[in-house]
Amino acid sequence: MSSFSHRIQTRYYAPPSAVHGDRLVLPPEEAHHALRVLRAAAGQEIEVVDGEGGWYRVRLDEADRRTAAGTILERRREVGEPDYSLTVGLAMLKNPSRYETFLEKATELGVTAVLPLQTARTQKARLKTARAQNILVSAMKQCGRSRQVHLSDVVDFTDVIAANTAGLKVICHEAGPLEDNLSALLAREPSLPRHILLLVGPEGGFSDDEVAAAQRAGFQVASLGPRRLRAETAALTAVAAIMLSAATT
Amino acid sequence: MSSFSHRIQTRYYAPPSAVHGDRLVLPPEEAHHALRVLRAAAGQEIEVVDGEGGWYRVRLDEADRRTAAGTILERRREVGEPDYSLTVGLAMLKNPSRYETFLEKATELGVTAVLPLQTARTQKARLKTARAQNILVSAMKQCGRSRQVHLSDVVDFTDVIAANTAGLKVICHEAGPLEDNLSALLAREPSLPRHILLLVGPEGGFSDDEVAAAQRAGFQVASLGPRRLRAETAALTAVAAIMLSAATT
Repeated sequence: MSSFSHRIQTRYYAPPSAVHGDRLVLPPEEAHHALRVLRAAAGQEIEVVDGEGGWYRVRLDEADRRTAAGTILERRREVGEPDYSLTVGLAMLKNPSRYETFLEKATELGVTAVLPLQTARTQKARLKTARAQNILVSAMKQCGRSRQVHLSDVVDFTDVIAANTAGLKVICHEAGPLEDNLSALLAREPSLPRHILLLVGPEGGFSDDEVAAAQRAGFQVASLGPRRLRAETAALTAVAAIMLSAATT
Repeated sequence: MSSFSHRIQTRYYAPPSAVHGDRLVLPPEEAHHALRVLRAAAGQEIEVVDGEGGWYRVRLDEADRRTAAGTILERRREVGEPDYSLTVGLAMLKNPSRYETFLEKATELGVTAVLPLQTARTQKARLKTARAQNILVSAMKQCGRSRQVHLSDVVDFTDVIAANTAGLKVICHEAGPLEDNLSALLAREPSLPRHILLLVGPEGGFSDDEVAAAQRAGFQVASLGPRRLRAETAALTAVAAIMLSAATT
């Protein structure tokens, strides 16, 4: 245990189905962590989030070999959640660990949903779904959110631009004008819209046709500075800019 | 080879000592990559950066089993470099791969130098220096810079805050006021100072004493939003905000 662990309350995850009236039963992996790793005991209070906006303060009353369960003392909603929704369409990447890095940090930075995009230049790519879900749960607990980032199935770029009704729609593009970078674009918005959709291309970027199609569908084009960013770096940069912009407007 | 590799010119690295008048000799690993992986041949033009701001267009005239060398056709300086200098003091982290993620993305986002900090809450930590240097060179070539991020030896927090004369000095702190986040702070600066120093703490953050000492030394305190960010996420968020702010002022 580190010398400052008292500062950071360990949070646990339990799905909504773990709540029965005022009783909450931790799922087996979380119970194991509580009982064996952190040596939680009956009488101790813990914090639990359900991944769907629910937050619970629970007093453990059962903490034996296999079961960790207790009484809900307090319920809150949307703890740690931003007051806007941000969906990021990030193209599938060749390297799944780079996508995983993005998913972890997207959670910390307040992203609502991630759409893995199939685009013109998407190469053979795969995402390890079970690993990704574990990363999303861990990151949610670690950063203090109560909602898990929703990771959709792979979707086609053309379907995403056709269907979406977000108040702010941005497609990030390397060749965008530097003075119209994402921060400048956000500064021009009178206030941050409640629903934001941000698209980031694969290793080779979006094609010119894709950018043009997105513009016809109402997307604004934003640059992310003068250098060639890796896809996941671009996505994190954009998400960070939106988070900081939201806190100031 | 991907279908769009023509769009992205492969860059090579050679230290300044590889330049002899108008002749440039690639170091062995780079020669191997050029000759065996990318099958470069005599007569072909390549781009080379030296990690110290030098950029060269070179026509290969020797491309045999072991040697790749050629004639410098064009020289430029500071290709891909920002017009400000940004030093990031990021505390050492327990997990070296998280520090490596930061180093890669710091390169893309235009950081000048990284100071691994020893702080009050720094836990036992190590950085694999050879690996880190390889990452810095690869990232430099990939993103189009000509300077390698300078990675210093580990330095003590108190020495860094005592010695520094940057025009803008910021210490990131979780407990900072939300409305005074880094974007708000940057928006108040009439223009981005040429020399910026940014400090980010370890997993457990800076101690209150450290924050107070930094403030006495002229640092401004900035929050990075409402959630608990991992140290490397905090550093990347702050660096991204500065990069986007620089391009708009």
